[in-house]
Amino acid sequence: MAIPVFDDVVAAAERIAPYAVRTPLVESPALGERTGARVFLKLETLQRTGSFKFRGATNRIAMIPQAARAGGVVAFSSGNHAQGVAAAAALFDMPALIVMPADAPAVKIANTKALGAEVVLYDRQKDDREAIAAAIRAERGATLVKPFDDAGVMAGQGTIGLEIAEDARRFGITPDLVLAPCSGGGLVTGTALALKGAGVGAAVHSVEPENFAGMKLSLAAGARTVAAGGALSIADALMSPFPGVIVFETAKSLLAPGLTVSDADMLDAVGFAARTLKLVVEPGGAAGIAALLAGRIAAEGKTVVVVVSGGNADFALVAEAVARASVI
Amino acid sequence: MAIPVFDDVVAAAERIAPYAVRTPLVESPALGERTGARVFLKLETLQRTGSFKFRGATNRIAMIPQAARAGGVVAFSSGNHAQGVAAAAALFDMPALIVMPADAPAVKIANTKALGAEVVLYDRQKDDREAIAAAIRAERGATLVKPFDDAGVMAGQGTIGLEIAEDARRFGITPDLVLAPCSGGGLVTGTALALKGAGVGAAVHSVEPENFAGMKLSLAAGARTVAAGGALSIADALMSPFPGVIVFETAKSLLAPGLTVSDADMLDAVGFAARTLKLVVEPGGAAGIAALLAGRIAAEGKTVVVVVSGGNADFALVAEAVARASVI
Repeated sequence: MAIPVFDDVVAAAERIAPYAVRTPLVESPALGERTGARVFLKLETLQRTGSFKFRGATNRIAMIPQAARAGGVVAFSSGNHAQGVAAAAALFDMPALIVMPADAPAVKIANTKALGAEVVLYDRQKDDREAIAAAIRAERGATLVKPFDDAGVMAGQGTIGLEIAEDARRFGITPDLVLAPCSGGGLVTGTALALKGAGVGAAVHSVEPENFAGMKLSLAAGARTVAAGGALSIADALMSPFPGVIVFETAKSLLAPGLTVSDADMLDAVGFAARTLKLVVEPGGAAGIAALLAGRIAAEGKTVVVVVSGGNADFALVAEAVARASVI
Repeated sequence: MAIPVFDDVVAAAERIAPYAVRTPLVESPALGERTGARVFLKLETLQRTGSFKFRGATNRIAMIPQAARAGGVVAFSSGNHAQGVAAAAALFDMPALIVMPADAPAVKIANTKALGAEVVLYDRQKDDREAIAAAIRAERGATLVKPFDDAGVMAGQGTIGLEIAEDARRFGITPDLVLAPCSGGGLVTGTALALKGAGVGAAVHSVEPENFAGMKLSLAAGARTVAAGGALSIADALMSPFPGVIVFETAKSLLAPGLTVSDADMLDAVGFAARTLKLVVEPGGAAGIAALLAGRIAAEGKTVVVVVSGGNADFALVAEAVARASVI
C-alpha cells in the first residue's frame, strides 16, 4: 500500500502542468462581509471537465508505464471522475472505458462519450460494477484508475494545495482555515499533505453531507468508520460512506475535525454562488461555501480558503437554488 | 479636457488596491479547442458588484478632494455603473445618489439601494436625467461620477490591463489579441492604454452589439461617429451609441479595428459560459467570448485574452441561454 508523501505531490504538479488549468485563488468580499473573515476561493470549477478530478486522473494516467498504455484505462463512476478520466486519457491518446450505472443522468453519459470514452452501462440492482471492471481489465490489459484510494490520484488532487500555498504567498496572506468538500477524501487529504509540505500551517477541514460524514466520524474515532447513509444527498459527488484506506492513513494525522452540511445548506450555497459570486457550482462543490454561510465553523477574524471543487450542476437545480430566498 | 496617460493607470492601481478584487486571468481549454487559439479569460465577473465598473468608480471617488467629500457623489445609470458607484462610495463613507429610470429592473434598483445608495427615479419619456443630476450636484455639492468619459474613470478601468500584463508575464505568454466589450469605451481604451504602457504589444479590439457599434464606426472614420441604433440589444450594458470624447482621443491611436456581435451570438456565449465555463456572465459581458465563438476574428494559432466584463445577468435569461442548443 503506497502512502503518498509531499514529494509525490511535487512530482504530480510537474506531470500535470502541460494539461491542467492553473486555477485561480480569488478573494470574495461578499463572503467576507457575511462571515467577518477574509475569504478566498480556489476555483476548481474552472478546471478542465469542470472539476478537480481531472488532476488526479491525469497524474495517475501519466504514471502508467509505456508498455501498459496500449491497454488503456478503465474507471467506474457516474460523475466527475468519469469525465476527468475520459479527458485525461484522450490527452494521452489512450482508450478509456467508463463503467456507468444505466440510470446515470443522460447528460453525464453523453458528456463522458463526448470526451472520447467508451461507456459500458450496468444495472445498479443486479450487476457488480467492480466485477465488470475487473473482467475488462483482465481482457484488455487496461489499468484501473480509482476515484480516490490511490497514491497517484491523491497526489494529483494535492496539487491544489501547492497552488494555494503559492498564491497565498503572492497575495501576502496566511490562511488560518482551509475547507474542502470530502467524499472518499482524496481532495481534502491531498490538499492538506501539500499545504503542510509547503509550510502552510492552516487547519484543514473536510466538509461532508450530514448522512455521509464518514471522514468526520473516522477522524473522531481514530479509525475508518462507516457513515449511517440514509436519504440520498443532493451532493451526488459526496456520497462515499467512508474515507479510503490510503486516504485515511494520511488524513488521520493531518486533518482538523470534520464538518457537515445539510442539503438545504448546499442548495443555499449554490444559489449564493450563482447570484452573488457569478459562479455555477454543483451542490457538492459548494459544500465549503455552505459550511461558511451556515456558520458551521467560527471564521470571524480569520483568513479562510475554500476549495470550490466542481461545477457540473444540473442547471434546473441551479435555477431552483437561485429562486430560493433564504440567502441573499 | 484631461486625457489619461499610463502613469494615471499606475496611480489608479495603487488607489484601488485596498478595495478592488485582484481578478484572475485563467486559461480556457474549451475555448481553445473551439478556436484553435490559446484563450485566457480576465474574469471581471468576480469583481466587487459583479462587474469592472467598480474599478473606475473607486479610482474616481478616491480622487475627490477631502473638502468635497461631504457632498457625496451622484451618478446616472440603470446598471453596473450604479452598483459600482454605490459600492465604492460606501467604502469611502460618502453618500451616493443614483438617478435611475423608473422602468429599470426592480432587482437593479433594489441592488443599488442594498449597497447603501439613495435612488432617485425619473421618467425616461418626460424627464432630463442630466438636468436632474445637475440640480442635485448644485444643491448638495455632490461630485458627478461619469460612466466612462472621464480620465479618472478610464484610468481605473485600465488597471485591468496592468493585471493582464502582470499575469501574462507570470504565465510566460505573449498575447496577440485582446478582446473587450465596448459601450462608451472606457474599459477597452483604458485597458489598451495600460497594455501599451506595460509593454504588451497585443492588438486590442473593441466588441460591440451590431446596432450600437459607435466605436467601430468611429475608428473606421477617424472621428466620433454615432451608431445607427435601432432595435435594443440584449446587452443592456453596451448600448452607448458613440464613444466618449476623452475616450476616443485615446482610442483612435491605440485600438485595432472594432468587432461586432449579434444578440444571438451573445446569447450563445452566455449559454456556453454557464454550461461549459461554469460562469454566470451577462450578455454584454460575454461579447468577447461571443466574438470568438462566432468567428468574428481570426484567432487560430494565436494567444488571445478576453475581458469578461460583468455577470449581472437576469437569471431567466441565463436559463434561456443554457436551454439553446446552438452551441455545445
